[in-house]
Parts: sequence; C-alpha cells; structure tokens
Amino acid sequence: MDYRIEKDTIGEIQVPADKIWGAQTQRSKENFQIGEEKMPIEIIRAFATLKKAAAIANKKLGKLSPAKADAIVTTADEILAGKWDDHFPLVVWQTGSGTQSNMNVNEVIAYRANQLLEEQGITEHVHPNDDVNKSQSSNDTFPTALHIAAVQIVENYLMPRLQLLKETLKEKSEAFNDIIKIGRTHLQDATPLTLGQEISGWHHMLVKSEKMIKVNTEFLKDLAIGGTAVGTGINAHPRFGDMVAEEISTLTGKSFASSENKFHALTSHDEIVSAHGALKALAVDLMKIANDVRWLASGPRSGIGEITIPENEPGSSIMPGKVNPTQSEAMTMVVTQVVGNDATIAFAASQGNFELNVFKPVIIYNFLQSARLLADAMKSFNDNCAVGIEPNMEVLEKNLENSLMLVTALNPYIGYENAAKIAKKAHKEGSTLKEAAISLGLLTEEQFDEYIDPKKMIYPNAE
Amino acid sequence: MDYRIEKDTIGEIQVPADKIWGAQTQRSKENFQIGEEKMPIEIIRAFATLKKAAAIANKKLGKLSPAKADAIVTTADEILAGKWDDHFPLVVWQTGSGTQSNMNVNEVIAYRANQLLEEQGITEHVHPNDDVNKSQSSNDTFPTALHIAAVQIVENYLMPRLQLLKETLKEKSEAFNDIIKIGRTHLQDATPLTLGQEISGWHHMLVKSEKMIKVNTEFLKDLAIGGTAVGTGINAHPRFGDMVAEEISTLTGKSFASSENKFHALTSHDEIVSAHGALKALAVDLMKIANDVRWLASGPRSGIGEITIPENEPGSSIMPGKVNPTQSEAMTMVVTQVVGNDATIAFAASQGNFELNVFKPVIIYNFLQSARLLADAMKSFNDNCAVGIEPNMEVLEKNLENSLMLVTALNPYIGYENAAKIAKKAHKEGSTLKEAAISLGLLTEEQFDEYIDPKKMIYPNAE
Amino acid sequence: MDYRIEKDTIGEIQVPADKIWGAQTQRSKENFQIGEEKMPIEIIRAFATLKKAAAIANKKLGKLSPAKADAIVTTADEILAGKWDDHFPLVVWQTGSGTQSNMNVNEVIAYRANQLLEEQGITEHVHPNDDVNKSQSSNDTFPTALHIAAVQIVENYLMPRLQLLKETLKEKSEAFNDIIKIGRTHLQDATPLTLGQEISGWHHMLVKSEKMIKVNTEFLKDLAIGGTAVGTGINAHPRFGDMVAEEISTLTGKSFASSENKFHALTSHDEIVSAHGALKALAVDLMKIANDVRWLASGPRSGIGEITIPENEPGSSIMPGKVNPTQSEAMTMVVTQVVGNDATIAFAASQGNFELNVFKPVIIYNFLQSARLLADAMKSFNDNCAVGIEPNMEVLEKNLENSLMLVTALNPYIGYENAAKIAKKAHKEGSTLKEAAISLGLLTEEQFDEYIDPKKMIYPNAE
Amino acid sequence: MDYRIEKDTIGEIQVPADKIWGAQTQRSKENFQIGEEKMPIEIIRAFATLKKAAAIANKKLGKLSPAKADAIVTTADEILAGKWDDHFPLVVWQTGSGTQSNMNVNEVIAYRANQLLEEQGITEHVHPNDDVNKSQSSNDTFPTALHIAAVQIVENYLMPRLQLLKETLKEKSEAFNDIIKIGRTHLQDATPLTLGQEISGWHHMLVKSEKMIKVNTEFLKDLAIGGTAVGTGINAHPRFGDMVAEEISTLTGKSFASSENKFHALTSHDEIVSAHGALKALAVDLMKIANDVRWLASGPRSGIGEITIPENEPGSSIMPGKVNPTQSEAMTMVVTQVVGNDATIAFAASQGNFELNVFKPVIIYNFLQSARLLADAMKSFNDNCAVGIEPNMEVLEKNLENSLMLVTALNPYIGYENAAKIAKKAHKEGSTLKEAAISLGLLTEEQFDEYIDPKKMIYPNAE
Repeated sequence: MDYRIEKDTIGEIQVPADKIWGAQTQRSKENFQIGEEKMPIEIIRAFATLKKAAAIANKKLGKLSPAKADAIVTTADEILAGKWDDHFPLVVWQTGSGTQSNMNVNEVIAYRANQLLEEQGITEHVHPNDDVNKSQSSNDTFPTALHIAAVQIVENYLMPRLQLLKETLKEKSEAFNDIIKIGRTHLQDATPLTLGQEISGWHHMLVKSEKMIKVNTEFLKDLAIGGTAVGTGINAHPRFGDMVAEEISTLTGKSFASSENKFHALTSHDEIVSAHGALKALAVDLMKIANDVRWLASGPRSGIGEITIPENEPGSSIMPGKVNPTQSEAMTMVVTQVVGNDATIAFAASQGNFELNVFKPVIIYNFLQSARLLADAMKSFNDNCAVGIEPNMEVLEKNLENSLMLVTALNPYIGYENAAKIAKKAHKEGSTLKEAAISLGLLTEEQFDEYIDPKKMIYPNAE
Repeated sequence: MDYRIEKDTIGEIQVPADKIWGAQTQRSKENFQIGEEKMPIEIIRAFATLKKAAAIANKKLGKLSPAKADAIVTTADEILAGKWDDHFPLVVWQTGSGTQSNMNVNEVIAYRANQLLEEQGITEHVHPNDDVNKSQSSNDTFPTALHIAAVQIVENYLMPRLQLLKETLKEKSEAFNDIIKIGRTHLQDATPLTLGQEISGWHHMLVKSEKMIKVNTEFLKDLAIGGTAVGTGINAHPRFGDMVAEEISTLTGKSFASSENKFHALTSHDEIVSAHGALKALAVDLMKIANDVRWLASGPRSGIGEITIPENEPGSSIMPGKVNPTQSEAMTMVVTQVVGNDATIAFAASQGNFELNVFKPVIIYNFLQSARLLADAMKSFNDNCAVGIEPNMEVLEKNLENSLMLVTALNPYIGYENAAKIAKKAHKEGSTLKEAAISLGLLTEEQFDEYIDPKKMIYPNAE
Repeated sequence: MDYRIEKDTIGEIQVPADKIWGAQTQRSKENFQIGEEKMPIEIIRAFATLKKAAAIANKKLGKLSPAKADAIVTTADEILAGKWDDHFPLVVWQTGSGTQSNMNVNEVIAYRANQLLEEQGITEHVHPNDDVNKSQSSNDTFPTALHIAAVQIVENYLMPRLQLLKETLKEKSEAFNDIIKIGRTHLQDATPLTLGQEISGWHHMLVKSEKMIKVNTEFLKDLAIGGTAVGTGINAHPRFGDMVAEEISTLTGKSFASSENKFHALTSHDEIVSAHGALKALAVDLMKIANDVRWLASGPRSGIGEITIPENEPGSSIMPGKVNPTQSEAMTMVVTQVVGNDATIAFAASQGNFELNVFKPVIIYNFLQSARLLADAMKSFNDNCAVGIEPNMEVLEKNLENSLMLVTALNPYIGYENAAKIAKKAHKEGSTLKEAAISLGLLTEEQFDEYIDPKKMIYPNAE
Repeated sequence: MDYRIEKDTIGEIQVPADKIWGAQTQRSKENFQIGEEKMPIEIIRAFATLKKAAAIANKKLGKLSPAKADAIVTTADEILAGKWDDHFPLVVWQTGSGTQSNMNVNEVIAYRANQLLEEQGITEHVHPNDDVNKSQSSNDTFPTALHIAAVQIVENYLMPRLQLLKETLKEKSEAFNDIIKIGRTHLQDATPLTLGQEISGWHHMLVKSEKMIKVNTEFLKDLAIGGTAVGTGINAHPRFGDMVAEEISTLTGKSFASSENKFHALTSHDEIVSAHGALKALAVDLMKIANDVRWLASGPRSGIGEITIPENEPGSSIMPGKVNPTQSEAMTMVVTQVVGNDATIAFAASQGNFELNVFKPVIIYNFLQSARLLADAMKSFNDNCAVGIEPNMEVLEKNLENSLMLVTALNPYIGYENAAKIAKKAHKEGSTLKEAAISLGLLTEEQFDEYIDPKKMIYPNAE
C-alpha cells in the first residue's frame, strides 16, 4: 500500500496515498477501532454546507481571501455532490465533541482546495485549522452540523413519507366509511363503529404526530455557530454567527438562526431530546397501527380476519402457502429500535460538563437512525401493505350480527343493570340478544328492533 | 369490622360500613392486591371536575334532573375539597382502562349524592352508571381525566417551580457577570468565560425547556370526552363532548376542547409521550446543571472549588465536618427516575389494540410522578442550594492566571500550529505562556501582553 | 405542636415531641420536600438487622459495652417488629449515599436505647455516630442494607409467588395435554400443538426465569460492610466485616459474606443491574404470558376464544355484561413499570464517581418496587385468572379442523412446493385441504387420510 | 444489469445474474427497503454452522443423500470462510422470524451446492426448502443461529478484550499500591486510600462483570433446533435436535444442547434479556471507570490532575496544544448505546404471541452491536489509555497533605462531635488540622502526630 506523510501538532503520520484526508483523520482511524458505525453521511454533508457558509461569511468579513474562500466553497459543493464520500472514514465512537470529524472535513477540504488553487496557479495555501476552520471550533460546528442534519432528515425525508402513509389512511378511511363492524376494547367485543372510523383513528395519529414533530423541530433551528470554543465566540467576528446562519438558511431553504445563548448551544441537547420524544410519539402510534393491521388480518381461518392485506412473499420455510404480516413486523421492530435510541439520546444528553457535552456523535447517530428507519418503514408499510388493505365483508358482517354489546344501546331505555341481564343471559345460553330480551320480559320484539340498530350506534344521538 | 352489603351486576359483596364506595370498588380492592401505588389523587380530583362538568351538561341537555345534577355537583365539589380522600382506595395496577377508578368515583358520588337528596327529602335516586356516568364511558372519561390532571400538574405545579429556579439562575448570572474564569471542555482547561456566562447557559436551558414543555402541553388539551365506549359517542348527545369540555375549561381556567377524533383519543397517548419527552428534556438539563454545581463546588481542598454552596446538614456519619452537595444528589436521582418513567410511558403507550389502549393508569402514574418530582426537586434545589451559590474568588483567579488555553487568542496572529508550540512548551516545562512564547521567539513581550488579555476573550472580536 | 430541641454538628433544631428521631433526620425532612416516595420499609428493616449484627460484633470485639450493645440489639428487634415504623419519615430523594436514612436509624436506635438504659438505671449513653454507627459509615452500611433488602425481597417474597404461578401453569399444562389445537405464528394459523404444550412454554419461561434470577441474586450476597468511609475500612477492626456478615447470615438464614473488594462494593452496583436484568427477563416473559391469555380468551363472539378465564368484576361502566381480562392488564402494566425501573437503575448505577456512587436510594427504591410488583402481580394473576383457565372445546376443535397448515405434514411426501399449491388452492376456494389435494391430483384420498393426522403432528416423527 | 429468472411459490422474479441468492431473498430485498443495517454477518456465519450440522445429522438419519449433504457441508464451509459475504444482502428490518434470512442462506447454499454437484457430474438437485432446510423451520433455526452468534461473540470476542483490560488494571493496581492519596465521596475530600486500592475497585468491577456475564451466557447454550414450526418438532426426527446440537458443539467447541422445551425456545428470549442485562452491568461499570479516569486526569492546571494519560491526538480544532481524554469519551458513548440497546431488546422480547416471537432480528442486531462495541471499546481504551496511566506524584502528595478528612481517625479517641469541631475550624480558618486541634485544646501535638497518620488509614485497624 502506498502512503504519503502528513503532519499535525503531534507529529508525522502515514496516510494512504489515495486518500485526501490528513493527519488527524488518520490518527482517529487508528486510535478508535471501535465498531462498524461510520459517522453518518448526513453529518458530513451538513458540515459541507456549514463550511461553505463559513467561507462565504469569512470572505465577506475580509477574514479569508476570495481565492481561498472560493476554493473551499467549490470543495464543499463537491462533497455535497457525493464526490468525496470515501474520504470520511471515521466512526461514531471517537472524541465526543466530534472534533475528529470536524478535522476530517477541514483536512479534506484543505487538501482539495489546495489542489484547486494549484490548478489555477494560485500560490495561496489553505490550512485546515487557520482557514477552513476559521472563526470556528469543533464545539460550535459539530452541534451546528448536528442541528442542520436533524432538521433536514426530519423535514426533507421523514415528513414526506409520513404524508404518504397519512394520505393512504385517509383514503382507506373514506373508502370504508360505511362498513359497520364490531368494536373491540380490552380485546373483547364492544359497541360497533365503521371500519372507516377505526382507520380514521390511525389517520389522526399521524395528523397529531406530524404536528408534534413540527413544533419540536422548530427548536432545532437554533445554531451554535458563532460560539467557537466555549460559547464566548473567541476568535470570531461578532456578526459571524448570524451571517453563517443566514447563509445556511439560504443554502438549505430553511430558517436557521444563530442561537441566542451559545453556552446553552454547546452544552445542552435538550432540543434533540424533545424532538426525539416527538419521533417516539410517532413510533408508538405506528406500533399501534401495525399491530391493529396484523391482528385484523390474522387468520386466514382461525384469527380475527376482518381485513386482508397483500401477500408479498412466502411466509414460511416449512409451512407451505403460509402468508405473514411481514410489513407490520418490520415496522414494529423499527419501533423497538426507536424506543431504545430514545434512551440512548437522553442518557447521552444528560452527561454534559461545564462548557461542553461530549456525547454528540452518539446522539446524532441515534437521532438520524430513528428518523431514517421511521421514514423508510412508513414508506415500505405504505407501499407494500397499507395501500392493499381490503375489508373481508363476510367476517365483518357475521361478527357484527353476533355482537352482545349492541345491548349498550338499551341503557337509556331500561338502565345499565337490566341491559346487563340481557347480555349475560344471551352469553350464557348462546342465544341472540333479542331472544334474551324478550324471554326476560324487558322488551317487546318491536321495541328491541327499534332500539337496537347498529347504524344508529356509530355516532352520538340526540334522542 | 362492620360491613354493609353492596351489589353490582356480578352480585353482592361486603363493603366496610365506614366507607362510601360501592361494589365495584370493593371488588377491585380485593382482586388487585398489587403494590402500594394508589391511583394518584390528581386523577381523582380531575375525575371530580369532569363528573361535575358532565352533570352540568347533562342537566342542560335535559338528560339529568336538576336535583340529581345538583347533588352530583355538590359531591364533586366536596371531593375537590379533599373531603372524601379516604374513599378512593384503589391501586394503579387494576384494569388498564381505569374503569374501576371511574366506577369508584361514580359510586362515591352516587352514595353521597343520595345522602344529600335524602337530607333534602328528595326521592330521586342517583345511580352510579345511569346517572353519574351518564353519556360517558370509562373509555372516554379516564383519558379525559388523564389529560386534565397532566395539564394541571404541568401548568399549575411544575411551571411555577421552573420559573423560580430560572429566576434565581438569571440573578446569579447577572450578579457574576464580571467574574472571568477558566472554561472547561472535555474536563480540560479551555478558553475563559465569565461565571455569569456559564450560569447563563443553565438559565437558557430552563428558558428552552419551558418553551418546549409549553408547546407540547398544548396537545394535551384535546379531551376524549364525548367518545364514550369506542369513540363513536354512542349514548351521548352530539353536543355533549363540546359542552363538557367547555365546562371543564371554565372550572379549571384552561382552554380544553373536545378532541376532533375520538378514535384517536381513546387509543393513542402520543400527546403524553411527546409531552413527557419535553419533561425529559428538562430533566437532562437539570442533571447537567446539578452536576456542574457539584463539580464546581467540589473540594473543599482537592476539588475544583470555584464556587461554594450552602452547608445544610452534616454530610457523613463517619467523617466529621464533611459537607456534601446533597441537593444536587437528590436532583440527579430524580432525573434518573424521570428517564425510567419515560421508558415506561412509551412502552405502555405503544400497546393499544383496536378501540382502546389499556395501559392508562400506569401512563398517568408515571407522568404525574415525573412532573411532581421535577417540580419539587427544582424548588428544593433552588431554596437549599442555588440561591446560596457564591464565587470562590481566590480559586477562580488562580485558575484563570495559570491557564494555557489563553494561547488560543494567538491563532489570528501566529497561526494554530505556532500557538500549539507555545502551549506545549509551557505545559512540558511548567512555565507561563509568556515565557514559552518569548523563548520560542514567536512573540515579543509587548505583543504577548497586547494579544493575551482574558477580558477580550469573553466575547467575539471584530478585529 | 410540641417540640423538643435536638442538635448535631450543624447546630440546634426543633423535632416533634412525639417522634424519637434526631437532628439529622429532621434536617433531611425539611431540606428534601420532594415527592411522596418514602425510603422503603424493607431498607429500614435491613438496616435494623445490620445495626443489630454490628452491635453484636462490636461487643465481641470489645468496642462496645455489653449494656450499650444489648440496648441497641433490643431496639433493632423492636424496629424489625414494626414498632417504630412511623419514625422513619425520610423520602428517597435525599442525599445519594443514604446517609440521612442511616442517621435516621442511628438516631432512632440511640434515642430508644437510651430510654431502655435509663429504665434499667444504667448511666451509659448511646451516641448515634460513636456507638450505633461504630466501625461503620453510611458508605458501607447503606449498600449493605441495600443488598440485604434486595436478597430478602427476591428470595422471601418474589420466589414463592413465582413458584405459585409456575405450579399452576404446570397443572394446567398437564390437564390440557391431550387437547390438540391450532398453532399460530406471526398471528397466522400454523401447525397444531396441544393446549398443554402451549402452556408448557409459559411454564418453562418461569422455570428459566427462576434459574436466572437465582444465579444473579447470588452476586448480591457480597456485602460492603467493613469498608467504612471509602473502602479501606478506616476505624473498623480487620475482622469486623466478616463478623457482621456472619451475624447477618445467622439472623436472616442466608449466606452473606463480606465483599472481597470494598472499593468495588461502595462504588459499583453492577450486581443490582444484572439482578434486575433477570427480573426484567421474568417481566418480559410475564407480558408474553398475560398477552397470550387475553388473546386466547378474547371474544366472547368475535375473538380467538379458545379459552375462558374467570369473570371477576363488571368490565365496563357503559357496556352492560362486558367482562375483561383485567388481571392480564394489571400484569402487563406492571411489566412496563419494571422495564422503566430497569432504565432508571442502569442510569443511576453508571454515575458513580471516585470512591462512591451517590444514587443508592433511587436504585433500591426501583429494585424493590419491581420485585414487589412482579410478586404481587403474579399472585393476583394466579389466584384471579390462571387457576381458572379452561379450554373452550367447541372453538378449539373447529379451528383445528379448518386449518390449512396441516398441509405441512405433506412436505416429506410431495415436497414444499406441491404442498404450497394445495394450501393456496384451498385458501383461494374456501375448500378443505383434502378437496384441494385430490383435485390437484397430488394425492389420493387414502394417502391424504394417512398423512394428514393432527395427532401425529404434535411431536417429532421418526418415519 | 444482467438478470436471471428465479421462482418461488409466489411466482417468478428477476435476480441479478452475478448473485447466487434466490427468489425469496430478492423479494425481501425489494419489499424491505428500510435503513442501512444489514443482517449481521455473525448471524449468517452461525446459520452456516447450523446448516452444516443439520446436513450431517440428516445424512446420519438417512434423510439426506450423502452427495447432497456433502455439497451442503462444503458450501457452508465456504460461507464460514467468507467466500459468499456479498450474497447476503438483506436488512434487519424484514420479517420478524428472520425467515427471509434463513431462506437467503438456504437459497445460497442450494445454488452453490448444485454447482458443486454439477461439477462432479452428479444429477441430484438440492432444494432450498426440502433439502437445506430439511427437518427445520425458520422458527427454530433463527433462534438457534441467534444463540450461537450470541455465545460466540461473548465468549470469543468480548471476553478476551475484557480480560485484557482487567489485566492492565490489575497491573496498575499493583504498581501503584503504595501511593497514598486523598479519597473522594460525593466529589468531596474524604479519607485516604492508595491509588492502587482505587484502581483495584475498577479491576474488581471487571472481575464481577466477567462472572455475571459468564453465568448468564450459559443459559444461551440451549438451542431451539428440533422444534421446527411451532415447537412440536413436526417433520423432524425425534433425535434430530440433539444430534444437531451435538454437531454444533463439536464445530464450535462449546457445549450447546437442544432445549428441554421448544415452545419456550421459539417464543421467549428471556435468556437474551438476562444476558444483555449482564452486558449492561459491565457497561455501567465501564462508564464509572472511564469517568474516573478522565476526572482524575482533568486539567492540566485547573482540574483534579492526579494522574496523566497518553496524549494521542490534537484535542481541539481551535485551542492549540489541547489534549482530551478521548478514549473515555468513546467508551462512555458506547455505554449510552448499550443502555439504549437494552431497552430495545427488552421491549422486543416482550412482544411474542402464541407460538412465536417475531422480533428476532432486532433483538440479535442489538445484542451483537452491544457485545462488539463493548469489546472494541475495552480494547481501544486499554491500548490507547489504560496502559499509559501514570500517577502525578506532586499533585497526589499536595492533596493528601491538605486533607481535612484525616480528622476521621480521631473519632475513636475524641468522638465524632469533637472531631467535627476540629475539621470545621480548620476549614473556616484555612488552617491545618493540627493547628485547629491544638488551638481547640482537644489534643496535644504529640497525640495528633500519633493518631493522624495516613499510612494507618488505608486499612482496618485492630487497635
């Protein structure tokens, strides 16, 4: 293998010749051989956006020459285009400030920017710390990149997929709005509702989750940039933070702002905890939806069987012809992952000391995994399951007909206790409610037929 | 022991003669001898508010006679005044819909209302199900009470205590705003800031948490009432939900509304999950604050020792004269509890099936515990610790003076790499930065004195 | 209210005249008005055992006069008998070493012992620190009490209740061993098994959990006693730790030992984390069992309905005659609590610094709650549900008969793919497997009847 | 891109021509485009071991021809050698039984085995279901592979790395056994101990964790194999489970056994929950160790500074010459991940229904990640930090000398209260203990010098 020699303030080190990272990246690669989880590419991209914005701001402030700034901007664009993806080899389990990934970005940009300058015959030299990192510290850039990446994955990736499933559920809810079915509480037969109403509950979960994710994501738009090393902004121009935030807003099409209090921004990740809490609220709703779907589709002959879902693949390696609710299974596994990620994030966020929280990489790794998995799972569930949900009319009708809980409609006429007598008698004897009601002398057949009508039980009644 | 006989649809049962609960309460008491955790009194009170509002609405709708309604209202007021606290004996670990606590309230109200009616010589009889529970089900009343109790504890109990600590931190931040001190990142000496700035970060945590709790609490103001058994509103008047929500708003001084979608309201607790996520964000901030306080106060002779805190009690049973940061300890234990509660709540909230989630009691038990503990711990921490924080000037000054990281201010003049040489030389030789800088020939004494001034390092600099 | 004056090294303080605690207890009561969770009585009792053992050891070592030692022993016995329960008012949320509860015990014992001595006309005076706490520190006594209490609740309280449910499941498994029923995987119909086999799986969960709890509890029998303030054993006799552990073993009938390494014992709670992990394993098994029970009992007409469970109370405040699987609900709520407690314990246990972990009260509060709730819930579930499980033969037989997955037995004869054709055809056409098999020409009726026999499908087959 | 057509019981599907997987793998790939987390290679390898063992057993039982069995065995060996790693493309988020990964293995083995048979001119054809999966189901093979992979990573990968760090800590503990230093409890100065004693506590954490992991891992050696579809063993020979377990034991050098109760083995993952509980106990110990190391090494001038650790890389992108405790940071981030994984595993393990738990992939994904991260982090921490820990004698001596808590040794002579007076006076006046003691007239200088000797305070004392 070919190497070149790079150096930093610790000394010299060999770097693979075909890689453009520098000494600090190489040291981290060697000193942190832990696990397989790479620093997420979303963070690298967010850093590229930030470094571009910082170069523009530094140029405007006269802190960076136009040539250097432009070379940095060009390189950042190349990173955003995916050109240098193989040059960010570091893992999540590195220094807790993410300094090594910040330096990885600084080093890659400096190396490439110097190539570009050289190609243009310019003799200026871009330094990873003095130029690419100018007016910045890992302590303000990493949390800035963290917020950018978090907002982007939520708004650009998760939300459209939530919308997709929400729309499907809305359509199903409307399509099935006249199909009356038995309700179930405590897994026990209850009063009726329509299949459309049942699904409207799922739909409303996504409506609510969407709103809660939205308001919690807003808090993530405060950026640490401008705080530098400890929050005071040492070595940065007073307007630097605002200017960079403005550039980032322009570049991303979102309204980021420089945080009011940088001491908070470096050391607290309360916004991420709260935003992930909203993702978790979505997750627990998705578990409920995915569970309902698989239970309603259970069978084919000895389950609930009130709906059917698409048959996408053979379900069993031993049981021929078996079909399973696999999309629900993938979804519910994702939910358990998100719940675990939430525990990790809160623990990590609680462990800041003095001017810095040094659990940033693990926090954003988990946040991004949650958002990505929820988004992907909603899309997969939507496309491969939800769109194909169909009612099984035969079962729906039989269940409704047999229901003992239609008796509830009698409360206003004969009272709860008499109604209970009817239900208990019918249950015990395996008879119909009508038979039991008449036999107990509590109602005439005509009264029964008037009062017991499932179609009237699916909405409030003014009578 | 004296008993009287009560009955329900299962049959007869003995109830202690000095208690006014009924058969179903008694059955639950006997069938669920699990643990010591009572259904929180906040839920009983919220139920009283709800039953009062429902009686008023039913009266207005002509569903309940004025005499009965008034007797229910009077009893509800007595419950709110704490008169019947001993008559709600049930534990959290009962049916997951909270039906038994709903019936406990219905039974106590019916019993007492009948006493009142009898005293007035009125012959009407209030029935727990047919009257007190009229137009209601446990399935919509319990989640309604749950939301009322959650909103009340957050807004009426937690928020004022958060304010208290927030104000104290603001005062301390202002009072110490001119005290320059060494910063610390990764626990290592870093560039300076003021003690006031450091505390402003804590203050801003509470500012942020307050906002996040506020927006997340709003979602809890949607009430399930009006949904009855499965969300359809069977046996309730179409206007009942809205009317009750309005009465509750009047009674509590908060703007509750009947939920747009009752199927969601009975089966999803996404709002509680998200709101508790915001409480958890506060909790992790409080851990950070409490930890910083105890580390900064560590010593007295071999710790950081930059601040002092009140000495409230002997710290050790064996070490004479020892004083410990006990308020920080109570606070951080509370935080670990809140983090565990969050896991419980999410798990429980994910387990709904069909038209109901039957983990409601454990959800609200944990939510209320978190809110109560955070509130109490903030007040205790404030009164017994935060208000007494004082700077230890001697230590603060010594640390600042010795700091090697003042070298950071040289970056713009001599570059990161040269600055590193100075810091490393001073560290290795135990010398001052100035000695190292001059000895390396990188700066003159005059330049050093001009560039290195902690007072200029505590804010961004336009130069 | 009447007061007397008590004093400690901080100064004087008023204590209610009818309480025998001292100054430090009073200070804690005033300084920690946080929540409602009292230091668990199990810890107070464990402390009484420990103080008794320590007094005996100190007497034998000549460190404590026989009169003082005997008075301490007598008082400890009174505490163990419940005589002074009202004199331990402190909450969990106090100093994290539990010093204040240690002192509460020391103060109560000293006060009462001095009463006893006075009654006997003895002029010696027992001092809370110098005598009751002799050769001890909170730092070694609290973790010692913690381990004693944990072992006692697991072995004396939890295990017998686990046994109870285990036995019931064994009996049910044997009683139903010949009842063949349809199996279900992924909630979908699968190959048959017997109801007894199904329940044997639940039984084996308790068998496994019991073993895992047992081995993990062994690690808790190492005690911190003898380590005093920081683990070195300062101010204790070299044999003190062993002697006290021996006395405690005698008093409790368990084999405790003084820990090999006291520095570990004061600062690590790895044994509690691992033991609670085993409790959590039991909890997740119980969730599975309780869920299976309620799903199998779901209905009465539109659920799975293969078993019936006892009807213990009216299930609904609105739906007359409804019966719910409430014991399963209480059980599964308990499980979510235990899972949350596990998160709290691990977080708290991770936060030790230097010579002490100061999260001890919250750790043991959660451990004891988990053990108590699991124990109580198992007993309640056993007595009010499991013992009454009965098969619903009609449903069981119908489901078995209709099952398409009996086709699996054809794999060895006609291969997985041909078998799948039969199952799919029968499913599509709503026919029997036999009809489909013959119609496809894959088997004769005779072959079908020979190969497809559920009775042969419930165990491995050598053919 | 080139394709070939593959088929399964659903129909035909295109598979990339350069891949040897089959139709079901392809379907899963297309239907589950969720996240980036591949089914861990450890599971694929464990499956290869299992399929090899099953082929051998089936051959011995006369169920599989020697030619087919040998071809399967050869292919399995190739998979174990890493030859086909690119042919297992599926993600964790698939069917919860892992059926698709079982079929992936079956398909790859069948394809490759048929190549081998063809090369040898043998006309027999290996079928993925009928041959490679003979006598098996995903429902018993996946949990079997899960246990094999879990045991292997713990015993072969984690344990040696735990040993490594344990040995280093033992060496350090011995090397520093005579260095007396100040102890700290509640972060406050306490009685002295030696640096070796302090580190012995860390060492003992690893000793304890090792034992707890060991006993909990034993439970994982029960294998589901032999249970097939629902635990009854349908389509398997009665001796098949035992024979396969024996072969696996031979192949892995570990003592696996076929589980006593297969209904448990398919549906409960209590052993994984408990084993991961032990991993979590290790994790919380590692957090404590890593925290102690970084706090003791904090500074260089304004921290605790009692030890030094290796300087491995530049610590800051802005602060020149800064060095950070980065190995502690990576370690503590890993701990937060393990704690989150534990929550995921417990949640997932609790969600089994009837004859199967369908959260298996997420369970093992998290278990393996925890084990791998803990192992790697221990090695990295050992090599890059722990081996280089050195005492900073100057600071250690100064701190010891100044300590007020040496006063504790006076308790036996003058009592706790008098000792407290000395400490408080010295603290208040900034004097030495000796000065305060003499000035209070409580001790003569000679007495003081006799009683106060740190060297005597580091072990129990018989006097």
